[in-house]
Amino acid sequence: MPTYVGAGADLSFPPPTPATALPVLRVLGQLDNSYITAEGPDGLYLIDQHAAHERILFERIERQRAQREIEVQGLLEPMPLEVSPRQEAELWSHYQELAEFGFAIEPFGGKTFLVRAVPAIVHDRDWAGMLRELLDSLSEGDKSNWAETVIITMACHSAVRAGQALTDSEMRELVRQLERAATPHTCPHGRPTMIHLSYGQLKKDFGRT
Amino acid sequence: MPTYVGAGADLSFPPPTPATALPVLRVLGQLDNSYITAEGPDGLYLIDQHAAHERILFERIERQRAQREIEVQGLLEPMPLEVSPRQEAELWSHYQELAEFGFAIEPFGGKTFLVRAVPAIVHDRDWAGMLRELLDSLSEGDKSNWAETVIITMACHSAVRAGQALTDSEMRELVRQLERAATPHTCPHGRPTMIHLSYGQLKKDFGRT
Repeated sequence: MPTYVGAGADLSFPPPTPATALPVLRVLGQLDNSYITAEGPDGLYLIDQHAAHERILFERIERQRAQREIEVQGLLEPMPLEVSPRQEAELWSHYQELAEFGFAIEPFGGKTFLVRAVPAIVHDRDWAGMLRELLDSLSEGDKSNWAETVIITMACHSAVRAGQALTDSEMRELVRQLERAATPHTCPHGRPTMIHLSYGQLKKDFGRT
Repeated sequence: MPTYVGAGADLSFPPPTPATALPVLRVLGQLDNSYITAEGPDGLYLIDQHAAHERILFERIERQRAQREIEVQGLLEPMPLEVSPRQEAELWSHYQELAEFGFAIEPFGGKTFLVRAVPAIVHDRDWAGMLRELLDSLSEGDKSNWAETVIITMACHSAVRAGQALTDSEMRELVRQLERAATPHTCPHGRPTMIHLSYGQLKKDFGRT
């Protein structure tokens, strides 16, 4: 007979698969260059490629930061960053915290700063635009979830866009990563990453029952 | 300025594309070996492969019969067909009409008949089982749509089944034929052949609006 673990039990066992886990999905194809259609054991899944990638990147950045393993990309030459007065105030008070995420930023005089390194995840994106948008959100938003705002902004700017054509292997890789996410069903902004049409529902809609 | 045709106009022009016409669809893949997923200019289409093929075959048989061009497959050897008393009565009163659909059936004595030829469309199916089912429906049903019952039964028995794996080219061919059907949205029994999820609806469901 199996014994059930109670209080004081050895918790070094891996936790059970969460109820939110995704089944293994087989990619069918891309829809409107924005959604991935996939077959699961229990129906059709439509996956919003941007929202899903945001979720994957959010969890990756969160994990890397917790383990102080953010990958940093040094720039070949330091790049100047011009900011607005409000952005400047935000940068002065937070540039050390931004360093935790991989941004090496130094004052250069006036409203100009020098960026020497950026998080690897955004180094081939418009990270200057992203930094300005981030500083604006930080100056407006709730300071208590400062780090979360940084992570969401980084994830959003690095994720594949709606309208971006993906190859079959890119789609499969994105779905594989989403399957392994801790919270696969919503993006960090709270939007759904997927719509599930069950076979039961399809049968009903097709008058097959 | 364009002139609009009224009563008495030259009707030899081809009719305008019916409002029910399908857009051109790009096949994504097969779902549950039963549904074809396809992308249209205005959303996702889920196509019930059996219902869609029934519709295609129904229109093909109807057209061939109207033009007296039903393709017939002679059997290498005449095959005996055993029937029930009720089926026998139906066969006696209708075997000449069945000949219009390609069934060459002769009395052989008692409840046995000899089948010498069948419609080409069913020659590699269980046409004996189909004939018995057809005779049962005919004896029970409304006699006024006798021919329609024959065509529906032939289409249903010849169509691909739910659960049957299709190759990419088979799916594409089926969708191409459905695009050309006069009434593509329902099968001859009145069930839907497809479900359409518009991009507008998807955007709403994904919180993208």
